[in-house]
Amino acid sequence: MDAPFHLPKEALMTMDYVKEVLDGSPRAAARLISWLEDEDERGHACMEQLYAHTGKAYVIGITGSPGAGKSTLTDKLTHALRRKGLTVGIVAVDPSSPFTGGALLGDRVRMSRLSTDPGVFIRSMATRGFLGGLAKATADVVKVLDASGKDVVVIETVGVGQDEVDIIGIADTTCLVLVPGLGDAIQSMKAGIMEIADVFVLNKADHAGADQLWAEVTFRIEQDASIKPGSWVRSVVKTVAVEDQGVVDLIVAIEQHRHWLEQTGKFQEQRRQRTRQETLRMIHNELFRRVRQHLTDSGALDQLVEEILNRQRDPYSIMRELLGNVFNQPVHL
Amino acid sequence: MDAPFHLPKEALMTMDYVKEVLDGSPRAAARLISWLEDEDERGHACMEQLYAHTGKAYVIGITGSPGAGKSTLTDKLTHALRRKGLTVGIVAVDPSSPFTGGALLGDRVRMSRLSTDPGVFIRSMATRGFLGGLAKATADVVKVLDASGKDVVVIETVGVGQDEVDIIGIADTTCLVLVPGLGDAIQSMKAGIMEIADVFVLNKADHAGADQLWAEVTFRIEQDASIKPGSWVRSVVKTVAVEDQGVVDLIVAIEQHRHWLEQTGKFQEQRRQRTRQETLRMIHNELFRRVRQHLTDSGALDQLVEEILNRQRDPYSIMRELLGNVFNQPVHL
Repeated sequence: MDAPFHLPKEALMTMDYVKEVLDGSPRAAARLISWLEDEDERGHACMEQLYAHTGKAYVIGITGSPGAGKSTLTDKLTHALRRKGLTVGIVAVDPSSPFTGGALLGDRVRMSRLSTDPGVFIRSMATRGFLGGLAKATADVVKVLDASGKDVVVIETVGVGQDEVDIIGIADTTCLVLVPGLGDAIQSMKAGIMEIADVFVLNKADHAGADQLWAEVTFRIEQDASIKPGSWVRSVVKTVAVEDQGVVDLIVAIEQHRHWLEQTGKFQEQRRQRTRQETLRMIHNELFRRVRQHLTDSGALDQLVEEILNRQRDPYSIMRELLGNVFNQPVHL
Repeated sequence: MDAPFHLPKEALMTMDYVKEVLDGSPRAAARLISWLEDEDERGHACMEQLYAHTGKAYVIGITGSPGAGKSTLTDKLTHALRRKGLTVGIVAVDPSSPFTGGALLGDRVRMSRLSTDPGVFIRSMATRGFLGGLAKATADVVKVLDASGKDVVVIETVGVGQDEVDIIGIADTTCLVLVPGLGDAIQSMKAGIMEIADVFVLNKADHAGADQLWAEVTFRIEQDASIKPGSWVRSVVKTVAVEDQGVVDLIVAIEQHRHWLEQTGKFQEQRRQRTRQETLRMIHNELFRRVRQHLTDSGALDQLVEEILNRQRDPYSIMRELLGNVFNQPVHL
């Protein structure tokens, strides 16, 4: 690969890593992901060169409440995909409390079983930056795994808030894992997540209340289908993940959704919409990173906060002065 | 009030509204809040002038699961505060699905009972912008009510995700409403919220399981207190909000926390930390608004997205070119 002359010097320093990621090296992929997480400038320099090689992997999202069995299901799904000869990347995201930092349940268990397979790459993301950088970071990792040649990338995340809706929004097909007996309160919390599900997975289908849940979900699907004719009629799959039951049915449901997306042109439309959001989010994150860095490095922020607290200044006029002419001119690219 | 010459023209157009808000006009406050929600530039112009008059109201946060009885408790708390001669602003936030828009439960019921009292101002916020603008919007509304002379501002929100942690982070004293019988799954979801609670409210204390819940919460408090000596020992209050029981105890607990904050200097420290976050968040939101507006207004984004989708360009180099030297120079304010 020849070094294009218009690339910045960081790009030239990273050519070897780019080549290794494209060749499927898990070590190079892990290094690149660390650069991206640490906001090391070599991260974006690599991504500029890798981007042309992305867009090939099919991205599956697995979401649901804590305790729904997402990790186990992701494991079994991965094993089933491997048996079909497909390589798999897993991004397990846990946007936990900003106070504890948080840890990823089941991660060690999973690592011991899948990590010896060179056709599988697993990355956990548990930390979070200030103000929602996790969706951008997840999108980056998905692209790295995509460029490294994985056929399928699975994003697994807890389904509770807007962060998770943004994260799972990266997926081509989103599976919502429900379990019997978690009660109405939880169901009502998941309103946002319910709406972005393409496939409902009724896990622990051998537990009491599974039939009731099936009836509720089916009713919901029929209702939605009657409101929005021509849209994807969402499917329901019963699984008992711990016993590896129903996982093949889940793959069939995902493949049907993929087929529907491709036949209707929605696949390209959905990726266009996501590229749009992703590009905006990326520019925004980087711009904010720069502002924050300059305000904190210079000590200006500490000074401003004191003046605001004493009511000598106000944050609104500071914002007006600080941002001044940023993007007040038309953009030419 | 004389018009300072350095203010932008929007500020001059809004002087009357500023004066009316300061005089306590609910109509002027409502108008200003609408401007802020609609991102009308008169909103920030007013806030620049109002800011010096904020910081006086005590801010109470009420959070908890759906069905915990937060609305009823907020109502009873408001009535009790009114009996003590205090004026009250209520900001009821429902960060529901970005797809449905969402509605606020119990809002109409409450309006009919409290809206005739000129000492109470209620604002519901149910819609949400892209990328977590709700915490910023809530902070704005709290400031408007503060400037309008309310002694206490109550923020009521569902406690489920990071959005809600950010929203409730505005409060001086945060009350977490728990009820017997909602199960372990819900408790585990609330990990982030559990940690920011200053006062635990055991509502529906006449229901089965209340003693069990009391024991669990008390154990948790003792555990935390032994880990962090010198920190606030969180209190537990039993209430039956529908029967107006325990509400005076809740006010006592909030007053004790306020007294502790003031005695230890934590009050000022906490407000400093929040001002810092708030200022950064405000800049964060405004940057996104500008990026989005300029890229979409010019049609540049549509063009870029097509080029990215075709892998002719990549979002990383676009970002590098677009941002160029923005904020690569030190900031002077």
